[in-house]
Amino acid sequence: MDNNRYIESICEKARNASRIIAKLSTGEKNLLLNRIAHKLLERIDYIVSENKKDLTAAGDKGLSDALLDRLVLNPDRIKGMAASLKEIAALDDPVGAVENMRVMPSGIRVGRMRVPLGVIAVIYESRPNVTTDIAALCIKSGNASILRGGKESINSNSALYAIVREALRESALPENIVTLIERTDRELVPVFLKMNNYIDIVIPRGGEGLIKMVKEISTIPVIKHDKGLCHIFIDAGADEETAKSISVNAKVQRPGVCNAMETLLIHKDYKYKESLIKALIDEGVEIRGCSKTVQLIPDRIKPASPEDWHTEYLDLILSVKIVDSIEDAMSHIAEYSSGHSEAIVTSDYLNAETFLREVDSSAVFVNASTRFHDGGEFGLGAEVGISTEKLHARGAMGLESLTTMKYIVYGKGEIR
Amino acid sequence: MDNNRYIESICEKARNASRIIAKLSTGEKNLLLNRIAHKLLERIDYIVSENKKDLTAAGDKGLSDALLDRLVLNPDRIKGMAASLKEIAALDDPVGAVENMRVMPSGIRVGRMRVPLGVIAVIYESRPNVTTDIAALCIKSGNASILRGGKESINSNSALYAIVREALRESALPENIVTLIERTDRELVPVFLKMNNYIDIVIPRGGEGLIKMVKEISTIPVIKHDKGLCHIFIDAGADEETAKSISVNAKVQRPGVCNAMETLLIHKDYKYKESLIKALIDEGVEIRGCSKTVQLIPDRIKPASPEDWHTEYLDLILSVKIVDSIEDAMSHIAEYSSGHSEAIVTSDYLNAETFLREVDSSAVFVNASTRFHDGGEFGLGAEVGISTEKLHARGAMGLESLTTMKYIVYGKGEIR
Repeated sequence: MDNNRYIESICEKARNASRIIAKLSTGEKNLLLNRIAHKLLERIDYIVSENKKDLTAAGDKGLSDALLDRLVLNPDRIKGMAASLKEIAALDDPVGAVENMRVMPSGIRVGRMRVPLGVIAVIYESRPNVTTDIAALCIKSGNASILRGGKESINSNSALYAIVREALRESALPENIVTLIERTDRELVPVFLKMNNYIDIVIPRGGEGLIKMVKEISTIPVIKHDKGLCHIFIDAGADEETAKSISVNAKVQRPGVCNAMETLLIHKDYKYKESLIKALIDEGVEIRGCSKTVQLIPDRIKPASPEDWHTEYLDLILSVKIVDSIEDAMSHIAEYSSGHSEAIVTSDYLNAETFLREVDSSAVFVNASTRFHDGGEFGLGAEVGISTEKLHARGAMGLESLTTMKYIVYGKGEIR
Repeated sequence: MDNNRYIESICEKARNASRIIAKLSTGEKNLLLNRIAHKLLERIDYIVSENKKDLTAAGDKGLSDALLDRLVLNPDRIKGMAASLKEIAALDDPVGAVENMRVMPSGIRVGRMRVPLGVIAVIYESRPNVTTDIAALCIKSGNASILRGGKESINSNSALYAIVREALRESALPENIVTLIERTDRELVPVFLKMNNYIDIVIPRGGEGLIKMVKEISTIPVIKHDKGLCHIFIDAGADEETAKSISVNAKVQRPGVCNAMETLLIHKDYKYKESLIKALIDEGVEIRGCSKTVQLIPDRIKPASPEDWHTEYLDLILSVKIVDSIEDAMSHIAEYSSGHSEAIVTSDYLNAETFLREVDSSAVFVNASTRFHDGGEFGLGAEVGISTEKLHARGAMGLESLTTMKYIVYGKGEIR
């Protein structure tokens, strides 16, 4: 079978299976998830031995230690994957909820029902834990899924998929509710990404290169986890300790993540500019400042280049700019932000409200660290990712982002 | 200025103006809308005389009567446009509403605020009333808009736009809150549709050709009004009168619209098949049936071709199929429907619920005509259109479809 036919036949089967999974009850879906979790724990030895094949091949190819580490499935990680399946089973089921049901003047009752999207494609790099994690999110939200993992993890993914399939069979459900694409040639991907007649959304999971490729090629709408060039603005009268602890937390606690601060904006009248910057330097942060910032501690601060304001460092480096007003701060943010997360530290009520209302990012914080932009911290449970798109899903995405709404109408024979 | 630079400069100005309109109060926006309405009524003679230029040019070019009719602006139509502006002013303002505000275990309070999308592009054909209508919807939802109308209506559009601009100036607002692209060359369109750095969504308003072109070229997300291949299923025990009145209404009342019925599915055990079909024939409907349908009244029913099941007639023609069960009806719908509107006529409780839950269309009806799928009938007020996309906006779209949500977080110095 050629690649086109192979992919199309997978997509057709997934589309048919999506009608079955869409109508399962919450109890049936949870039973399936717990069954997969149970099987993962039963089959640890098998998974580890299949994973060894991938690790050996990857070692032969000379993959970096970081990539090798992501590829490893040991008993602890498999237990973590099983625990994650059970957590997803414990989440509220978004499907079937009806909102805003009203009687209209014509007599019809109209409301909106939350329903699954249908078929979800997921393209990811060589982290085999994504296989069960994303399959579980799709199952819980009532969607069929088609998974395409990195070729370095094919044996691990196939082992995990065999377990998922077994659980589907034992639940008397169609196996095509979850499909793993087991052919690994790269030529498949563009074919796959044009299957918009069968697939409702595609989710790329991985680095910027993968996401960019998917965005460019795909005719299927893309839901993606985005990068973050996050700003914090310290207002003139901000509390010294609050400004310090939020800035340090947002930069230092985990600098490599999308909700870490990359640029600090400080009001020119803020009294503790120098001690704030020193606190960051003491935590090992390299400061790249505007000319006014450099003047504060000339021997410890590098001048920022124009590109620095555009840079997501993902490292212990920070751009710092001194601004004349909250308006200047918001203009800087409008120009340079990636629309992910921005915060103000202030004790001024009006400035807090102005910043909250006017800054056009997927999450806006008053007196809290940008690091809180996270599905778990926002009460969504398992996270699909954080989106900076404005349509469909914006900010931290939970199960709801894998669903849509339809109008439902109850009548008694009404006509127009 | 070349076309690229011309379009980019318009987009930049609109992006800047979007920050101003986004923060206007409901009262300020309503004042602006009423001011535009007032000016339209004051300037009827001017608008009519500018419209005459378009009509003369169009007559010279030999445009069809239908196209000419759409182009006409007479005092009655202008009064209608002003009334529509006032109606939009009277709608609820979606912007600023906060939902689901909760305190999380960390202490932060998290909710979601409804906010404007930013900049909306609208491409439409030669119906000048769209100019004020869509500008008003964008104003009310807090968005800047860039309008590109058909070149046959350029004088009318420019006249209307001059009035909008005047109202903006008198309100001490930036004129670029609404922009009309006054250059009419076709080469502009592809340039315009690639401005995804400045424009958040594009709305095509017009025929299928325009929508298809926009979908294919645009790198900006598209919100569109879709065609409808709508089905009604008459269940075995459906009430005779209800089945007849809903079927006739859905097919005959206004056959040229997207929510009219195109295919009728009848359960084989429904007792009044023949009289139902006769009632439709009596209303002037041409019936194209499956072989079993043809047997009912052989001399009055044509056999349906395979393409008929795929056809949106928008005319007094109807495909009719006799099916063995509700499952068969739903399978037919899953295969042929455009996902717009489907209805069941039934007296069976379980079948009503099954159809409602399982049919994957933007609106699903029990015992009511598909003709009710309409923003006004659903209580949304002015309608942006009806979408069969699953992401962002599905089904009848009101002002809310021109907005998005952002997370807002109130803290007291919380860190992770």
